[in-house]
Amino acid sequence: MKNFRLTIEYDGARYHGWQRQKKDITIQATIEEALALITRQKISLIGSGRTDAGVHALGQVANFKCHTRLDADTFQKALNSLLPDDIVIKACHEMPLEFHARYDVKSKVYQYRIINRPLPSALMRCYTWHIRSPLNTGAINHALKGLLGCHDFKAFEATGSPRSHTRRTILRADWIVEKEDIHCFYIEADGFLRYMVRNLVGTLVDVGLNKKTVQAFQEILSSRNRSQAGATAPPQGLYLSQVKY
Amino acid sequence: MKNFRLTIEYDGARYHGWQRQKKDITIQATIEEALALITRQKISLIGSGRTDAGVHALGQVANFKCHTRLDADTFQKALNSLLPDDIVIKACHEMPLEFHARYDVKSKVYQYRIINRPLPSALMRCYTWHIRSPLNTGAINHALKGLLGCHDFKAFEATGSPRSHTRRTILRADWIVEKEDIHCFYIEADGFLRYMVRNLVGTLVDVGLNKKTVQAFQEILSSRNRSQAGATAPPQGLYLSQVKY
Repeated sequence: MKNFRLTIEYDGARYHGWQRQKKDITIQATIEEALALITRQKISLIGSGRTDAGVHALGQVANFKCHTRLDADTFQKALNSLLPDDIVIKACHEMPLEFHARYDVKSKVYQYRIINRPLPSALMRCYTWHIRSPLNTGAINHALKGLLGCHDFKAFEATGSPRSHTRRTILRADWIVEKEDIHCFYIEADGFLRYMVRNLVGTLVDVGLNKKTVQAFQEILSSRNRSQAGATAPPQGLYLSQVKY
Repeated sequence: MKNFRLTIEYDGARYHGWQRQKKDITIQATIEEALALITRQKISLIGSGRTDAGVHALGQVANFKCHTRLDADTFQKALNSLLPDDIVIKACHEMPLEFHARYDVKSKVYQYRIINRPLPSALMRCYTWHIRSPLNTGAINHALKGLLGCHDFKAFEATGSPRSHTRRTILRADWIVEKEDIHCFYIEADGFLRYMVRNLVGTLVDVGLNKKTVQAFQEILSSRNRSQAGATAPPQGLYLSQVKY
């Protein structure tokens, strides 16, 4: 038995998210089908976590076990030749049998990209969120200072998500303006609740548009009340950048 | 009678180029249909020039004339609300009646984007050309020095194109490496022959891959012989950036 770790880039636009579903096309199912063709075995792919419909990845990580004489390099080449061109296996490594892509995660890095200009972008419409009015990055950065460290993120969780607890530790939270009208929010944490990044971004954009004060942002975080936070930012701006082990 | 100038961004992926065709969907026809809905008139849109199937634009320019009480601002808003989201009218200005988007062009700027890394990119596959082996940018820049000024570009023209003459003046030619693996070629000229940028890029990439010498590049340019030059680079890396008047 061997255990392989995949690092995966994908364009989420065409997919109903990472996780295998009965009807709809997903990233996990697409890769599992390619693995079945290569190995002639039914193989379960374990992702580091789900990504939602329309969300992208620069470095999703997954692992799978199988009895095979193939090596990691051969798997990578075979997968890339079989997969559609919106999924690319960036790396494949053989790992100790005990490696588990979900249980062993130390932290994850997401980025969220916004185009901030009066008119939408024809070319970036599937890869950014368009915000028409100028964002006050001073206010956003002020709000971010309160985010580092361990907090209960219940206010930023999708309603009705079943979780044992909702405390997460934020290791990095930076809002960077690239190329004048492209804003990029980088966030690293030991784990994320469902919709947590998109709900944070929705609320931070409210701060940037002066619809909410920095003080209000702090109060929402403390409130643990989802109904206080801003709207969920749309999926096409979100990228799973890196999974650390 | 009024004359309006449009500045247009589009994602060319879904279109059979700029120019109206009998069957296939094109940028020109799509905008003309929206203009017909707004004005209830049949309106001809004059582009600064064609772009081929799959080629993008950040700043294509076109003009149209019509009898109307509407102003430029109203046209821009109405067009953007009617057009699909892969075409965006970035600006609309009323111009003197004699302004002509094609005849009055002083120069055009194109950019061509390449992703230069071993593996293709899932996220940039529709917006870059993937070159697997490392490009020698020193050699490319050396070749570019000979490009500035006025030359006969017959060697870089699509075969069988009918043109009165094939001399064009290059005002700018820069090959810039952005973000480590993204290469961007900027070229400005008083005009371009059909496939000229893509044929130049194909040949420059041959120089960057050490398949052709800088000397050979110069000889191809002098030869005026299309069969000497490299392959035509694919359309998805090409952007019409700006049209100057």
